[in-house]
Amino acid sequence: MLTLDKIYHASYVLKDVIRPTNIVKAPDLSDRCEVYLKPENLQLTGSFKLRGSGYMISQLTDEEKKHGVIACSAGNHAQGVALAATKYGIPSLICLPDGAPISKVEATKAYGADVCMVKGVYDDAYQKALQLRDEKGYTFVHPFDDINVIAGQGTIGLEILDECKDADAVVVPIGGGGLIAGVAFALKKLKPEIKVYGVQAAGAPSMYNAIKDGKIETLESVSTIADGIAVKEPGQNTFQLVKEYVDQIVTVSEDEICSAILALIEQHKMIAEGAGAVSVAAVMFNKLPLDGKKVVCVVSGGNIDVTILSRVIKRGLMKSGRSCSLCIELMDKPGQLEDVSRIIARHGGNVTSVHHERASETTDINGCFLRLQLETRNYEHIESIKKALKKEGFKLV
Amino acid sequence: MLTLDKIYHASYVLKDVIRPTNIVKAPDLSDRCEVYLKPENLQLTGSFKLRGSGYMISQLTDEEKKHGVIACSAGNHAQGVALAATKYGIPSLICLPDGAPISKVEATKAYGADVCMVKGVYDDAYQKALQLRDEKGYTFVHPFDDINVIAGQGTIGLEILDECKDADAVVVPIGGGGLIAGVAFALKKLKPEIKVYGVQAAGAPSMYNAIKDGKIETLESVSTIADGIAVKEPGQNTFQLVKEYVDQIVTVSEDEICSAILALIEQHKMIAEGAGAVSVAAVMFNKLPLDGKKVVCVVSGGNIDVTILSRVIKRGLMKSGRSCSLCIELMDKPGQLEDVSRIIARHGGNVTSVHHERASETTDINGCFLRLQLETRNYEHIESIKKALKKEGFKLV
Repeated sequence: MLTLDKIYHASYVLKDVIRPTNIVKAPDLSDRCEVYLKPENLQLTGSFKLRGSGYMISQLTDEEKKHGVIACSAGNHAQGVALAATKYGIPSLICLPDGAPISKVEATKAYGADVCMVKGVYDDAYQKALQLRDEKGYTFVHPFDDINVIAGQGTIGLEILDECKDADAVVVPIGGGGLIAGVAFALKKLKPEIKVYGVQAAGAPSMYNAIKDGKIETLESVSTIADGIAVKEPGQNTFQLVKEYVDQIVTVSEDEICSAILALIEQHKMIAEGAGAVSVAAVMFNKLPLDGKKVVCVVSGGNIDVTILSRVIKRGLMKSGRSCSLCIELMDKPGQLEDVSRIIARHGGNVTSVHHERASETTDINGCFLRLQLETRNYEHIESIKKALKKEGFKLV
Repeated sequence: MLTLDKIYHASYVLKDVIRPTNIVKAPDLSDRCEVYLKPENLQLTGSFKLRGSGYMISQLTDEEKKHGVIACSAGNHAQGVALAATKYGIPSLICLPDGAPISKVEATKAYGADVCMVKGVYDDAYQKALQLRDEKGYTFVHPFDDINVIAGQGTIGLEILDECKDADAVVVPIGGGGLIAGVAFALKKLKPEIKVYGVQAAGAPSMYNAIKDGKIETLESVSTIADGIAVKEPGQNTFQLVKEYVDQIVTVSEDEICSAILALIEQHKMIAEGAGAVSVAAVMFNKLPLDGKKVVCVVSGGNIDVTILSRVIKRGLMKSGRSCSLCIELMDKPGQLEDVSRIIARHGGNVTSVHHERASETTDINGCFLRLQLETRNYEHIESIKKALKKEGFKLV
């Protein structure tokens, strides 16, 4: 059973396992509330997951430790278990689906785990892990639905109150629910009036649906760049704890997540992964009743694949009105490109790419399209440029 | 004249202007020495520049303050002067060349400065700033060659010794030389045996050349993604101080800078700009005699344009062997693509893009090219894939 004492114990045990992650003020993320960040993306292994697996492993018997632990994950949990096991000097084996990114596989190995690549998807790797557990006597480390894992994650709740006693609300990403279950439990036991809000990606709303419908359901598929919280089914324990201790759950869109990642990069020079940034996205896009409140957003992880970071940046720029694509239909005659360029320059837009193409079947045979990428200040700026182009007779497609 | 007392005074004055930037351990950046980072990219305005302009402005007379300050910059100096002036409640005007990125212009305005866009390049904006100074009575805030500015930057030296008393060496980026002049002066006065190393981009080696040749020269052009240190000519004061207090200056290549930025993103979830990452690049690529030493790298700023960040990431991945392009000449017959795919998959390469094109004029009329982008583990991995392809008769172009 989860108790506050267990979380205090976890906090004591984890002192030598984790790195402190001090709360940072983030005044520019909202003009409606006072925002602070709990940057668990700066935690060792790049996410909070080390806490749960660290505490869970610390509580194994000597006999269990001797046999080692097994886990299934292609992400933060794999790295958390690997480093925690290494810190306690015990062997670990991580099953990964064979499509897992090379960078994650290498990182898991680097933290000291053995890696077992399993043909197929996550579920295949999971089955393989259970099979190996039964055959070889490993202890399975669940990514979220284990009381000791939840207690480990709950230590973040204690730290938030240590550093920010007068917080009115805490906003926490939800995947399987281990993080928010522990954090909400700790916070509500110590300060019942504090609000705890959960955030999921709209493309993977498993806990959101479960709470709405009052029962656990399994999503057929999940789709989000926040891969760290793309979980099809919440845990039994986490569901019960969330039902009891979390005030509200909201979802955020992919574009909102990208904007939040971008804001953290630009304003705080800090890398968050999609899963880590959903809490910030919920605050930035006013999904929660936070006006005038002092709010701590848990930024739960930073392990974003750098190869997708550039796509995220592009989307984030678009979403915040600082980049836009225009497609203008031109008559194929001299001087048109010049006119367009002049209008845009006069209105302070900065052209970053030009693509000029002949008409398709659907347009005038003399027509052509000009696709422009612009650097802009904000949405009003984009509108003023569009209006000026239309006023001079150009047709925007 | 620069004195240690002046730097102590600056440190006292700046307490209420700057944010603390605590030193971070960075064990994975080198296996030859013990690396620490002084993360001034996390400073307010995203760079150390606030220190110099903050102290300089604090020392103005009331009369001078009333008239306000003027500066010329499209980068960190602009933002530093803007925020410093706002903190002291005085007006500031920043001259920028009209090609400056919108994001920098907006940031400068957001910190409270008026902005004067000047047609042309940096030198035109600089001339305009001097002209406005003479006409309107503003005080000009030099980006580096001013004793109070240098004293302000020198406070970083005090902080490094506070936090890391037993450091053997400090590595500092050099543009105009203001940062390293202040830091080296402070460090050497307090701990004469400490080594202070400077790093420039190979594409903008103005101080490097000046020290080598014993006199200040002006570079005809500079070209580097480290725009924050792309300075054509060092200052008179900074040159003298560097000559006296800096042990050695080295340069790093563009690819090395990209790798350093990438390492800071992946290992420390931290955004550095090119100028800020040159110190880390010098350590990563063993440019300095640091074996077995305790080394602090000053990461001077984090204001990298997000639109170029994705290019940097690509270059960084290439440079570290985690991404590669292969161009394979194929006979245009069925089954070839399959063979290539099989060989690559068997060797653990992950294909991320495929481009198949018919022969150009220079090749066999039946030939075609297959351009592949692969995700790989390291250089050895790339070589093993290439070798396997060659062994099965494919020709790599």
